[in-house]
Amino acid sequence: MASVVKTKSDFGRWLASVRPIVDDALEAALAPTQLPKVPQGLLEPMAYALLGNGKRVRPALCLLVAEACGGQAKTALPAALACEMIHAYSLIHDDLPCMDDDELRRGRPTVHVKFSEATAVLAGDALQTLAFQTVAAQSDSRLAAVQVRYLAHAAGPAGMVGGQMLDMDCEGQNPDLDLVLQLHGAKTGALLSASMYLGALAAGAEPSAWQTYAASVGRLFQITDDIIDATSTTAELGKTAGKDSSAGKATVVAVLGLEGARELAAVEVAAALGALEEIQPALHYDELADLPRFLGTRST
Amino acid sequence: MASVVKTKSDFGRWLASVRPIVDDALEAALAPTQLPKVPQGLLEPMAYALLGNGKRVRPALCLLVAEACGGQAKTALPAALACEMIHAYSLIHDDLPCMDDDELRRGRPTVHVKFSEATAVLAGDALQTLAFQTVAAQSDSRLAAVQVRYLAHAAGPAGMVGGQMLDMDCEGQNPDLDLVLQLHGAKTGALLSASMYLGALAAGAEPSAWQTYAASVGRLFQITDDIIDATSTTAELGKTAGKDSSAGKATVVAVLGLEGARELAAVEVAAALGALEEIQPALHYDELADLPRFLGTRST
Repeated sequence: MASVVKTKSDFGRWLASVRPIVDDALEAALAPTQLPKVPQGLLEPMAYALLGNGKRVRPALCLLVAEACGGQAKTALPAALACEMIHAYSLIHDDLPCMDDDELRRGRPTVHVKFSEATAVLAGDALQTLAFQTVAAQSDSRLAAVQVRYLAHAAGPAGMVGGQMLDMDCEGQNPDLDLVLQLHGAKTGALLSASMYLGALAAGAEPSAWQTYAASVGRLFQITDDIIDATSTTAELGKTAGKDSSAGKATVVAVLGLEGARELAAVEVAAALGALEEIQPALHYDELADLPRFLGTRST
Repeated sequence: MASVVKTKSDFGRWLASVRPIVDDALEAALAPTQLPKVPQGLLEPMAYALLGNGKRVRPALCLLVAEACGGQAKTALPAALACEMIHAYSLIHDDLPCMDDDELRRGRPTVHVKFSEATAVLAGDALQTLAFQTVAAQSDSRLAAVQVRYLAHAAGPAGMVGGQMLDMDCEGQNPDLDLVLQLHGAKTGALLSASMYLGALAAGAEPSAWQTYAASVGRLFQITDDIIDATSTTAELGKTAGKDSSAGKATVVAVLGLEGARELAAVEVAAALGALEEIQPALHYDELADLPRFLGTRST
C-alpha cells in the first residue's frame, strides 16, 4: 500500500535532524549561567528573538557543508550558531519602526512590539557581538580568526548591512533586475553563502569551491521569498504578507512578474546542480542536490 | 622668561602624538578603495561618525599599554582602531530617539539628525561588524582570536550593551552608588579596560596585571564625565549639557553630589597610582601616572 504521508525531502530531513542540536546549543549559549553578568532585561529579548521558531537554515547549511567536506559537524557548530545570531539580530533591526516597521515575525510580535524600541536596538547589538564572541571562543585560533573574517565580511557594510541600506534606498525606485539581484545578494545571499563557507573552513576545505553553488542557492532563496510574499497570507507566513509590494520594495516579482520569477528560479536550480557536480562533495550529495528544490517548494 | 603657554600633561602629549596615526588609520580603514562594495549612503554616515573630532582616548590607551608592556604600537593598531569603531557605533545607537534622543554629539548634529534614523541604525551596526573584521584581519591568528574574545566580552551583553540597558532601566529609579558604579563599569569601563587589555595582549603580556589600574581609570572617566555634564554648558561640551540629571539618569553626581563625586575621583586617582606601582611598566610610566590626573582635569 502506497504511503499517503508526505515524505520529507532530503534537505528537509537534514534540517529536521540537526535542528534539535542547533536549538539546544543556542539555548545553552544564552543560559544565564553562561552569561551571568547580563541584565535580565536584555537576556530575555535576546532569547525571545534567537530561540523562537526559526527554520535554522543557516546553521543547517553550515553543518551540512562541513560534513560534505569531510569534516565534523561539531567543529562547525560555533560558526553555525554565530550565523543564526547574526540572522536573528538583523531581523530585530530590520523590523524596527524606522526600518521595515513590522509588527509580526515568525507568527509572534516583533521584539520592539513585545518589549520596546530601545530594547530591540540593544538586543540586536548584543546578538551581533555574541556571534563574534562565539566564533572566537573556539580552541583553534587559526580557524576562529579566519571564520571571524569571513563572517564579518558577509554581515558588514559590504554584505548584509550594505544590502539593507541599498534595499531602503531602492524603495519606490523601480530598480532593474541586476540591481535587485545585487542588493539581495548582499542583504540575504552574503550570509547564506558565509554559512556554507564557514562550514567548509571548519572542515579545513577551501570555501571558494562553493562560491557558484552558494550564490545560486542565495538567489533562489530570495526569489522564492519574493514569490511567497506575493502569494501567501499573513497567517501562512507568520509575518505581514504582501508587505514588499505595498512598500514599493525591490523584489524579483516586481521586476519579472510571478511567472518570470518562477522561470528564473528554475534557471538557478539548474545552476546550483551544475555547480554541485563540479564540487563532488565527499558526503551529503543528495541533501545538497535537494536544497534548491526544497527552497523552491517551501511555503514559509 | 617663564612660558605662559599652558604645558600639555604627559598623557595629553601622548594623545596628541598618536592621534594623527590613529586618524590616518581610521580614514584608511573607511577608504572607498578599502570597502569597494559598500554603498555610498552607508559609507558616508560611518565616516561622519568615526572620523569626527573624537579624542581617541581608547586607541591611545591601547597603543600606550602595548608600548608600556614592551611591545610595538603598530602590532596594537588594529585593536586600537577596533575599540574606536565600537565606541563610535555605541554613540550612534545611544543617541537614537528611542534611546537617549540626543541631537548633538562632538559639536555636530548626531547621525540620525544629519542622515536618518534608519541610516543611524545601519551605520552603527556596520561599524560594530567592521571592528571585529579589523581585529580578525591581523596576520597573527592567535592574537586576533584572543583580542576578538576580549573585545566582544567588553562590548557585548555582559559589558557595554548590558550597561546601556541597566542605565535605561535605572532612569528615575534613584539607584545607590554600588549600582551606579556597576552600570557605568559595564557601560563605559568595560571598553576602556578592554582597550588596555588588547594593548597588553598585542605585546604578548598578561592583561590581568592591568585589571585594577584599568578599573580605576574607567570609574574616574565616568565620575569626571558626570561632573562635566553637571557643570558645563552645551557649547563647551559639544553635546547637550545637563542632560543626565534632567533625564533622571543614574550618575555619581546624582548620588554623591558634586563635592562627593570630586572626593571619590581623588580616591580613584590614588587607587590607579597604587596599581601602577604594582605593574612596574617597562615604558611610559609618566604618561600612565598622568592619565588619572588628565581625566580629572579634562573639561570635555
